[in-house]
Amino acid sequence: MLEKLKQEVLEANLMLPQHNLVTFTWGNVSGIDRESKLVVIKPSGVPYDKLKVEDLVVTDLDGNIVEGDLNPSSDTATHLALYRAFPEIGGIVHTHSPWATSWAQAGRRIPALGTTHADYFYGEVPCTRKLTEDEVNRAYELETGNVIIETVRNEGIDPKALPGILVTGHAPFCWGKDADNAVHNAVVLEEVAKMALHTLQLNPGVEWIDQYLLDKHYLRKHGANAYYGQNKAETKQETSN
Amino acid sequence: MLEKLKQEVLEANLMLPQHNLVTFTWGNVSGIDRESKLVVIKPSGVPYDKLKVEDLVVTDLDGNIVEGDLNPSSDTATHLALYRAFPEIGGIVHTHSPWATSWAQAGRRIPALGTTHADYFYGEVPCTRKLTEDEVNRAYELETGNVIIETVRNEGIDPKALPGILVTGHAPFCWGKDADNAVHNAVVLEEVAKMALHTLQLNPGVEWIDQYLLDKHYLRKHGANAYYGQNKAETKQETSN
Amino acid sequence: MLEKLKQEVLEANLMLPQHNLVTFTWGNVSGIDRESKLVVIKPSGVPYDKLKVEDLVVTDLDGNIVEGDLNPSSDTATHLALYRAFPEIGGIVHTHSPWATSWAQAGRRIPALGTTHADYFYGEVPCTRKLTEDEVNRAYELETGNVIIETVRNEGIDPKALPGILVTGHAPFCWGKDADNAVHNAVVLEEVAKMALHTLQLNPGVEWIDQYLLDKHYLRKHGANAYYGQNKAETKQETSN
Amino acid sequence: MLEKLKQEVLEANLMLPQHNLVTFTWGNVSGIDRESKLVVIKPSGVPYDKLKVEDLVVTDLDGNIVEGDLNPSSDTATHLALYRAFPEIGGIVHTHSPWATSWAQAGRRIPALGTTHADYFYGEVPCTRKLTEDEVNRAYELETGNVIIETVRNEGIDPKALPGILVTGHAPFCWGKDADNAVHNAVVLEEVAKMALHTLQLNPGVEWIDQYLLDKHYLRKHGANAYYGQNKAETKQETSN
Repeated sequence: MLEKLKQEVLEANLMLPQHNLVTFTWGNVSGIDRESKLVVIKPSGVPYDKLKVEDLVVTDLDGNIVEGDLNPSSDTATHLALYRAFPEIGGIVHTHSPWATSWAQAGRRIPALGTTHADYFYGEVPCTRKLTEDEVNRAYELETGNVIIETVRNEGIDPKALPGILVTGHAPFCWGKDADNAVHNAVVLEEVAKMALHTLQLNPGVEWIDQYLLDKHYLRKHGANAYYGQNKAETKQETSN
Repeated sequence: MLEKLKQEVLEANLMLPQHNLVTFTWGNVSGIDRESKLVVIKPSGVPYDKLKVEDLVVTDLDGNIVEGDLNPSSDTATHLALYRAFPEIGGIVHTHSPWATSWAQAGRRIPALGTTHADYFYGEVPCTRKLTEDEVNRAYELETGNVIIETVRNEGIDPKALPGILVTGHAPFCWGKDADNAVHNAVVLEEVAKMALHTLQLNPGVEWIDQYLLDKHYLRKHGANAYYGQNKAETKQETSN
Repeated sequence: MLEKLKQEVLEANLMLPQHNLVTFTWGNVSGIDRESKLVVIKPSGVPYDKLKVEDLVVTDLDGNIVEGDLNPSSDTATHLALYRAFPEIGGIVHTHSPWATSWAQAGRRIPALGTTHADYFYGEVPCTRKLTEDEVNRAYELETGNVIIETVRNEGIDPKALPGILVTGHAPFCWGKDADNAVHNAVVLEEVAKMALHTLQLNPGVEWIDQYLLDKHYLRKHGANAYYGQNKAETKQETSN
Repeated sequence: MLEKLKQEVLEANLMLPQHNLVTFTWGNVSGIDRESKLVVIKPSGVPYDKLKVEDLVVTDLDGNIVEGDLNPSSDTATHLALYRAFPEIGGIVHTHSPWATSWAQAGRRIPALGTTHADYFYGEVPCTRKLTEDEVNRAYELETGNVIIETVRNEGIDPKALPGILVTGHAPFCWGKDADNAVHNAVVLEEVAKMALHTLQLNPGVEWIDQYLLDKHYLRKHGANAYYGQNKAETKQETSN
């Protein structure tokens, strides 16, 4: 069942230590099969170097375990809330990567200070409000998802164009069209978070990059007229054959 | 004698370079067998890549060497004081890991700024007072243990819920239910110390996380109602077989 | 065609991950054969660990693809503008290396604070003005090249003596006598950028190093009277044989 | 000739990249045979991964090359000045290690903020005055040695108890009883420099550690009553056999 998705989710989880995004088991990746509405997610507390395809847990969008002998990630309810709210996303990752987590702990949004940011995040990376005591005690992981959704909706954010967020006092969540793409965005967020701190140390009054430069960089990598990478080359090859 | 404990203490010592907690031989791990009241500890000044089980030193709680040809760690008296004072701990580690040591040198407690901290340390990581000249000259390593015990007791700290401390002007000590768990906590402390500095640089007036969030995160990993990891799954597997 | 140059450009591109200058595919190196006026450059979006000699793209100085099935780097127009403007350079590299990029994002020149800087960069590393909206929209990559050329010329810089620049809000470009030398300079720039930030944190009012020390260090490595390395030894060996 | 010393100097040079003290060839180690008054030093500009015993250069204390086909390090005159001035040292290392170099560029001494420092450096790490234009132009490398000697003597420093110094606007030099010990001290200096910057960021008004704690830590590792490591154990083993 869902063998291809499981393989993708396994490989995306293994990317976390490869890109130095995790200490111990502080991170989890999931992917969804939109047709069957089933989610594949990392089991809770299992080290990456021992993780196997058969350890992954399959749940439906209500959190019922459909397959797997292990407990799913303790953050599963957050993942599921995001999948229910944002039909355009196919993969989610949560880590405590240290630079992005420092911004989350500071309760501070990451401004768009350069083209590295603009290549992947079309505007500042938002930061949620704090959760209330009632939210934490009633359904902590679900409410973490809800406060992310609330922030994205209140600010009119397109989740595809801004594939990540900081949960205040906690850490980042990122997403993407699939599990691999979600982790890709998490790596970028960590790099952007690190550079933004150093940029502010060099120039505390630095201004955001101009909107037209943000547009240019985001749109040369994304959307109908993107020209980064080999998209056109592939077309050309097809044409010339 | 104590072969299983020796193997655990050896492996816990080898975790120090693997997790980048040590330069040269700047760290030592011990473990105790509470039944025989014997402690196994790293020998002094031996590089980790040459450390073998038979190099480990066994002492009683008064510091008498029961087994081993090498000098025990020069910090042995500190370890023994902590074992005598805190019957609930089974392993101790001392390192000069650079981020935690920077806080210790600054004489500053590490506030609980996020859930990473809350997952392992149930409150701020304390910092001892300075040792007096008399304490340093009379019995430095023993008094280092005593000032840790004094701090823990004065502040009403539960050593199991707050498994580490900073010795002002010196470096951190961590502990845990066994040697492996102590090193695990030392890795967390280093990561937390790094992120706390960067958080303060981003937001010098940042507030502690709310007590209810601290409670939530600590208690979902620890105590009777913990639901992180595979505890419940293991029960389930036993049940279903 | 240009097999030796292709091999050099391939190896120079592979130096980027080895020296931790790149995340994913965020960097590209090119080299030029001045006789045939042909440029060899990395294809766009191809990971370094899959890059092969036959993937490299050959273009003329107007950007016409002369050989290669893949799209050239999306920054090709910047490289070509620099080759047209500066006949003394033989290789170019663009990365988003994090320390240099932090200075570029801050829009701040890197002052010459020590001999490490002076050994390779004969004066402060300049920072371009921002591109205008018209420049970005009309011909972004070409205008990135033009603003670099404008800065170098306005400030009377000798590109051989100052082999790198920061593009404000974006990232660094470096160059050299060939592709390998360009990457060498990019590694130095990253190290210099890191140390300059920490130097300013330690001494915000720090002065530039004295001009005579800058002269001494730059000229003991470069120019007719250089005495660093094995130049004289090679002469000696020739003489003594 | 001097085969044992050459092997030691080779291995000490190879420790530089292993401990991340160098970029490219930015570092050199030498050792002296006090009986023959001959110095073995790294050749200039040779990468560490290609360095062989037969590449090392042997000079006398006046800089005459006694053996070797390659140019010695361009910093040889500095090494020789230190060997002539300080008969108690047997090895010298110069690097541009980034944290210590940041302090040198800032022209700021490294205060003794903790026991890590005290274990190896018995007091603050000094910083030379700037070299004058005349000194730089007349005999730069020799005068670099002279300004180190001037600083050490003016401040009444015992080179054995304070085995390193920062040359303002340049980088650190360290020394020790032999080449290996000199590199050991350079590794410590880099770690101490990193932690001192972070300590000051956490507590800008931090005080030095108390003199009695400095004494305790330095003297438990050095001098007649040292009790760190296996000195006593070795005695015991001899005795008990």
